[in-house]
Amino acid sequence: VRADALPGIPEIGAGDDLAALLARAAARIGGLEPTDVLVVAHKAISKAEGRVVALAGVKPGDRARELAAQHDKDARHVQVVLDESAELLRADRGRFIARTHHGFVCANAGVDLSNAPEGHAVLLPLDPDASARRLHAALGCAVVVSDSFGRPWRVGQVEVAIGCAGLSPLEDWRGREDSHGRELHATHIAIADEMAAAADLVRGKDSREPAVRLRGLTARGDGSGKDLLRPLEDDLFR
Amino acid sequence: VRADALPGIPEIGAGDDLAALLARAAARIGGLEPTDVLVVAHKAISKAEGRVVALAGVKPGDRARELAAQHDKDARHVQVVLDESAELLRADRGRFIARTHHGFVCANAGVDLSNAPEGHAVLLPLDPDASARRLHAALGCAVVVSDSFGRPWRVGQVEVAIGCAGLSPLEDWRGREDSHGRELHATHIAIADEMAAAADLVRGKDSREPAVRLRGLTARGDGSGKDLLRPLEDDLFR
Repeated sequence: VRADALPGIPEIGAGDDLAALLARAAARIGGLEPTDVLVVAHKAISKAEGRVVALAGVKPGDRARELAAQHDKDARHVQVVLDESAELLRADRGRFIARTHHGFVCANAGVDLSNAPEGHAVLLPLDPDASARRLHAALGCAVVVSDSFGRPWRVGQVEVAIGCAGLSPLEDWRGREDSHGRELHATHIAIADEMAAAADLVRGKDSREPAVRLRGLTARGDGSGKDLLRPLEDDLFR
Repeated sequence: VRADALPGIPEIGAGDDLAALLARAAARIGGLEPTDVLVVAHKAISKAEGRVVALAGVKPGDRARELAAQHDKDARHVQVVLDESAELLRADRGRFIARTHHGFVCANAGVDLSNAPEGHAVLLPLDPDASARRLHAALGCAVVVSDSFGRPWRVGQVEVAIGCAGLSPLEDWRGREDSHGRELHATHIAIADEMAAAADLVRGKDSREPAVRLRGLTARGDGSGKDLLRPLEDDLFR
């Protein structure tokens, strides 16, 4: 398996044809093949899709103002986080852990002020699977849309999959046997998360390398980033 | 960046010279260079270090018997899990989420009955960093010791780092600027976890490919797998 960042992608703006920009960048390193997996950081997609909010136009409500005062935050930023949240799981010393409307549990419901124009916040795509499907249709390879998430219990962020097209994000090992002929302990491997993590190792974080081509994997099936979401009734850590 | 599984590693037993077996396997694909990172699934290490328990010799105590009855488990297995645990965070429908004595939070405190001889459980290494340091000293490249962990909120397991040598497991982005000249939102990237995940994409799960060579990364610094553990006072999800 090889991982290569796509070079020379310009800063993305609303309405940009991201698929064309990615295809052009990929051509510089030999192009994309149908068996490749392209991992795209969501921020490039969010910007192309116009999922950027000017804080100047946000009117914070009572709850946002209260949380902002308690946590020394910009109330407009907090309002955007609340707008993107289905549930706020924890608010602790300025850290907001929220479940987004899609169902992802992450800091600030994915609302990010870095790598955004001054005074603006970048949101997650409305439907990361749909974004992945559009790129998959245009580029022909499997696509994973990624974001960097923190984790409980572990320090540091890792890149995970929030949408995909042209592959199943989970590899099902149920029924396979170990080297002693017994059923395996690990039943499902979150390969789309592992692909997102692998891609993150080769790209720069300054948003100029939002896409990485993985070659040599065999992407199978077709699934959704939501396949990676644990059902609420199965959630031991709300 | 390239990832290649080391071929032809035999089933490991207690007392085996794992470094020699890994070196021989690596030689078949061109050997190891000092700039390589070798990701080794802990199970090979645990077996070489004799961290395997025969369930027949385990006497379950009252708490293990009670939990086993409640969750339809083998009380001896539960006793081993409790022995390896500093704290049981959740016990729910047969799933035990525990903090190990090292501080890792994972299912069954890392005690695993699959890929183990019949009637035996494989434990985590006593000191995964020390295991990594021994391999690092013998092989010359950076080493990451990995295990597959489940995650709250997300379905499926991913491989993460539980020990390392010859590299810092966290990349510190504090103070670096985004493409707009502002400080980055992501402050620490858990690159050792991302390396473990990347390695998992290329190896078989039947324990016959426990080691993967990553080439083309620049491993820097020297740290511990415990650098990835969030301090207890910073834990929002106990």
